[in-house]
Amino acid sequence: MSFKFQKTLGIIGGGQLAKMLILSAQKWGLKTHIFTHSLDEPASSLAGKVTLGSHSDKKALISWLKTCDWITTESEFVDLKSVKSQKIQPSPKNINLFRDRLTQKQTLENYKLSTSPFSLLTSDNTFKKPSVLKKRLFGYDGYGTEIVKNKNSFTNFMNTNPIHNDWIIEDHINFSKELAFSLVRSKENSFCTLPLVETKQKDSKCFWVKGPVKNKNFEDLLKKAKKMMKDLDYIGLLTFELFELKNKSLLINEIAPRVHNSGHYSIEALNLSQFDLHLLAVMGEKLPKKAHSNLGFAMVNLIGSNTKKPVINATDKASLHWYGKTENRKGRKMGHITCIDKSSDLALKTALKEAGKQTL
Amino acid sequence: MSFKFQKTLGIIGGGQLAKMLILSAQKWGLKTHIFTHSLDEPASSLAGKVTLGSHSDKKALISWLKTCDWITTESEFVDLKSVKSQKIQPSPKNINLFRDRLTQKQTLENYKLSTSPFSLLTSDNTFKKPSVLKKRLFGYDGYGTEIVKNKNSFTNFMNTNPIHNDWIIEDHINFSKELAFSLVRSKENSFCTLPLVETKQKDSKCFWVKGPVKNKNFEDLLKKAKKMMKDLDYIGLLTFELFELKNKSLLINEIAPRVHNSGHYSIEALNLSQFDLHLLAVMGEKLPKKAHSNLGFAMVNLIGSNTKKPVINATDKASLHWYGKTENRKGRKMGHITCIDKSSDLALKTALKEAGKQTL
Repeated sequence: MSFKFQKTLGIIGGGQLAKMLILSAQKWGLKTHIFTHSLDEPASSLAGKVTLGSHSDKKALISWLKTCDWITTESEFVDLKSVKSQKIQPSPKNINLFRDRLTQKQTLENYKLSTSPFSLLTSDNTFKKPSVLKKRLFGYDGYGTEIVKNKNSFTNFMNTNPIHNDWIIEDHINFSKELAFSLVRSKENSFCTLPLVETKQKDSKCFWVKGPVKNKNFEDLLKKAKKMMKDLDYIGLLTFELFELKNKSLLINEIAPRVHNSGHYSIEALNLSQFDLHLLAVMGEKLPKKAHSNLGFAMVNLIGSNTKKPVINATDKASLHWYGKTENRKGRKMGHITCIDKSSDLALKTALKEAGKQTL
Repeated sequence: MSFKFQKTLGIIGGGQLAKMLILSAQKWGLKTHIFTHSLDEPASSLAGKVTLGSHSDKKALISWLKTCDWITTESEFVDLKSVKSQKIQPSPKNINLFRDRLTQKQTLENYKLSTSPFSLLTSDNTFKKPSVLKKRLFGYDGYGTEIVKNKNSFTNFMNTNPIHNDWIIEDHINFSKELAFSLVRSKENSFCTLPLVETKQKDSKCFWVKGPVKNKNFEDLLKKAKKMMKDLDYIGLLTFELFELKNKSLLINEIAPRVHNSGHYSIEALNLSQFDLHLLAVMGEKLPKKAHSNLGFAMVNLIGSNTKKPVINATDKASLHWYGKTENRKGRKMGHITCIDKSSDLALKTALKEAGKQTL
């Protein structure tokens, strides 16, 4: 159960998630080697080594794989199924199972994990009630998601998206809050649960997160989620985005087989962050049962509003993360701010105030 | 007061202090470029760029300087006085003033900052009472420090160290505790004070740190220290190691013009770490007045006991930092563990327990 020194962690991708994974790995003295498409990516300037390549270049990926002792990915969009390697965790098989919203939801149903009613979209579908159409693959931050509230917009959608079975159709849920949490599994079925948090979206993107929060149905959901991860031999961190209904029951909105924006608070708020815990699992270390937060916390995303150069001020009462992206863009996640305080509401108040001082 | 994007922080040195400065810089998306002697140094694998060179190679240093927007150093041992550059903070003049224990103590006396009685060692000195002999330059972690308790050991010291004026002689202080804190100054005389902490040494090396602690004389000392830093136009973080006497009065043992082992706790315990604050000052940002700790904290060093490969276990209730040094050695600082809890004593208990699980 000991760290293996001088060994190399490989990460596929060079965005902010890869960057924060690297910061964790380097805190522990591990070597890092990323496979990404550009030296301008946030993670490129801090990785020990960078191999430039396209995700579709199987030959390049395989030769890169050989230089790494453990491998993980920051994105489920890369299909690694053809690259046969035990080193990759979560396994490509599990990533592919969850990245397809159809098989994701079918799997959740198999484990009695409640999710919004859904079906594969077919040409036979007609408008019945307000629904959400989600692209099965490559959707994120609202991209690949359409809310249809009436017959007209439904018909319009069906006409402009002729390949219907690329999509699933879900009931539109009237939730009272959105919650999230992550669960990490390592070998020998050791689990670590991160705190339940509330998340707020704005323009289909995560705006803020605060926690920890409570829900009486959380333990039951956890039990079923662990059973699913055990049966699938899922290794690494898995993130659950939830709807909390008025009666406090929980529905799973979607799950992501990777570290996640809803867990960025954990860098400051927990003794082991989501990035630390994911790496421990990928390296086959035994996990602590819980990642504790002694106080309340909040995280606010810093999202680009135009293409001008941002003006970012140092924060007084919060912690600032800036991803170092070379271009600002409207809607782009450029950084985030985390705050710790006696309660999550106090923390959120300060984090929002600090975020308000930034111009981007 | 805004971050300057795509700009480069230069650091002279490649050890764990440089490494932790880089982790701070990268969290903010800054580029980093270090000047060090080996690619095997802890900071070399994570710096954006590494220039290999000897500190005495003025030409190489100057050409490296030109690639950086701000420059700082992890060690006062490097004499940068001949390298004329406004970019270097703290200024080489101030570093040289404080790195020489004679001029350091003379400066403290000028500002009525109490320190143990001392004088320059000369051939006329005879043994009068238990004393501490300190090498004026390049002493650290007990190296360059000799405690003489009787006439014999004094005579022996004088004979084996013929260049007497390389040394100062101090009264041996019977302190009840050792304390420490850091003070950061940026331009426009903006200051940030880090919490007062207790430090415990073992074999002349920092063993653990806990805090925050209180002392009724701290405010008065702070006032004088700020006056000194203002007059000297000292920019960056300055660390004060203190003796607390039985009557709670404070004597300055020594000061270090850089980030310091006694402040490593700040990565987890404060919203801005000592590394963050030092960088803000070096970049000319305005500082918050205080760096707050919401709870108690403790840090325990992981120190090598032999040359065998360490076995380091993942920590459950603490945060682990491993510097990634290529060789373990007796007495070498290899990593540290930080713990946050309701009180500093609880935090220390856990941190010591977690440190006890490691074999090195």
